[in-house]
Amino acid sequence: MKPIIAITMGDYNGIGPEVALKAAISPAVKRICIPVLVGSTYVFEHYAKLLKMKITLKEIESVPKNNSDALPILSVRKFVKPNIKPGILSYEAGRIATESVISAALICLEKEVDGMVTAPLAKESINFEGFDFPGQSELITTLCKRSNFAMMMLYKNFRVALVTIHIPIKEIPSLLTKQLLKDKIQTLNDSLIKDFGIRKPKIAVLGLNPHAGENGVIGEEENEMIIPIMKQAKRKGVNIEGPFPADGFFGVHAYKNYDAVLAMYHDQGLIPIKLLGFEEGVNFTAGLPIVRTSPDHGTAFDIAGKGKANPSSTIEAIKTAVTIINNRRKNKK
Amino acid sequence: MKPIIAITMGDYNGIGPEVALKAAISPAVKRICIPVLVGSTYVFEHYAKLLKMKITLKEIESVPKNNSDALPILSVRKFVKPNIKPGILSYEAGRIATESVISAALICLEKEVDGMVTAPLAKESINFEGFDFPGQSELITTLCKRSNFAMMMLYKNFRVALVTIHIPIKEIPSLLTKQLLKDKIQTLNDSLIKDFGIRKPKIAVLGLNPHAGENGVIGEEENEMIIPIMKQAKRKGVNIEGPFPADGFFGVHAYKNYDAVLAMYHDQGLIPIKLLGFEEGVNFTAGLPIVRTSPDHGTAFDIAGKGKANPSSTIEAIKTAVTIINNRRKNKK
Repeated sequence: MKPIIAITMGDYNGIGPEVALKAAISPAVKRICIPVLVGSTYVFEHYAKLLKMKITLKEIESVPKNNSDALPILSVRKFVKPNIKPGILSYEAGRIATESVISAALICLEKEVDGMVTAPLAKESINFEGFDFPGQSELITTLCKRSNFAMMMLYKNFRVALVTIHIPIKEIPSLLTKQLLKDKIQTLNDSLIKDFGIRKPKIAVLGLNPHAGENGVIGEEENEMIIPIMKQAKRKGVNIEGPFPADGFFGVHAYKNYDAVLAMYHDQGLIPIKLLGFEEGVNFTAGLPIVRTSPDHGTAFDIAGKGKANPSSTIEAIKTAVTIINNRRKNKK
Repeated sequence: MKPIIAITMGDYNGIGPEVALKAAISPAVKRICIPVLVGSTYVFEHYAKLLKMKITLKEIESVPKNNSDALPILSVRKFVKPNIKPGILSYEAGRIATESVISAALICLEKEVDGMVTAPLAKESINFEGFDFPGQSELITTLCKRSNFAMMMLYKNFRVALVTIHIPIKEIPSLLTKQLLKDKIQTLNDSLIKDFGIRKPKIAVLGLNPHAGENGVIGEEENEMIIPIMKQAKRKGVNIEGPFPADGFFGVHAYKNYDAVLAMYHDQGLIPIKLLGFEEGVNFTAGLPIVRTSPDHGTAFDIAGKGKANPSSTIEAIKTAVTIINNRRKNKK
């Protein structure tokens, strides 16, 4: 049975609705799954018309079990008529984007659908009064009632997981704890086995500091925290190496020798994989009961509404979600 | 007239002497400059024999004006017979490496030679009592009595300059100041004009925080420091853009549109350029009265003494030094 994938709309003033629509009608996608759009019908219709797409959109009451000619939409926040202004930051766009994510996550948890792919929203546009989530990953993991999760970026067999994510550089030292490291290693190792079907995963850990601290000369976190936690993990049977100086590690393309790389912070892990995976990288939230992936780009306000958005990363995200769903299914047997 | 280039030995338990020797006898190098080795004659002879290199080494009293069959060595710390143990960290190795750097810098300052290329040393091995320099760049800049300098990494037309260098991540927030940023921008802009012959350089600045702070949602340094300093620089005529989210910037290969990229810290700038410039990157210290470059790799203790070291980055470093020397000469005319 083809997995059913919920695709959220993202910020309607960004390229979210466009990449969601383009990806959902792609033959490569329809061949492997049943896509269901989640968001404002008004917005999707607006963009389908603007982009002169020859498709029929159909608001649904329940999730379809097969693909049909009409693209199904699970509509949210119907009582609002969105004021679409491509490229403009708006809390109203953020609110609808947020509700799309919540709806998609809930039908995932209720097993109405098998996985979800989230189009991009702007962190600033969801920074409204009364809402305290820095991004959709944090929102989804909270809905799943999981605090142990790991943001991963995937490009072919190059997989990066992040220990800290959307936090200022100055907060890394206080947020990077032994417990956090331990949890991320465990989550990553479990996910490589369960979601990616790798029987004995090999993990590389990057140092926090330049030159991985050069044995204490440039920072103490490696000696005091990273190395002891890695030793613990090894004793528990995790196949883990490092901590490696990040620049040298990528300089010799050492990521090729590992099933995944654990980076200490956002840019350390995402710069190299985005550089190599130009427009084809996929974001995956490991450690959740549900399967959630997303494209690796942002709202791209500068090209919103112009028909220029490239859906390849979203299509890759859907393919990855399907692969993970199938691996989990195999695992259950 | 061919420039005379001093090549330091580096740590004798690492691959430094090997890459220095291999680079100095390379026809590509001899065609464009007069290489002079600076270090222990004993060490160079040891490695030349070990690696079965058919060369004559010659201790010199003064700098030669032409290439000859014998490779000239300016010998340091002659009173010590080094105890060479490839792969082993040793303060004695650090001391000789340090003296080689000092000698080379001094003959540069005295204009006996036109530039210097430094083979790698281990930061730990120069961490001895009574010596307080984290690395050779800091040592050289101190000898040059310059506090305004910028570490740059070069690979073809991809140039990265760093605002902070060999400091722990947790010290970045306190060391990153408006004055520092201002100095680095100025140093970089001047160097692009004077050393690289770019009349009107275009500089990209990266944000410090993930997503360049996403307008204050993930950190304040962009709004409070980076953007105001960039505005100041623009008013002074510097062609500068940003601050860009580092992952997205490299994800779309935007570095191609700029003459240089200013990164806020070590790994942010060095991960992408080392990833692309695999073994051919060159380190350059901008803002000094002397010309100093170095290969982009470390001591590689694991392959020391095995004849496996690749001199290409050192050869590139020599070529780059020659180019910069020639640009400065043109500039003076």
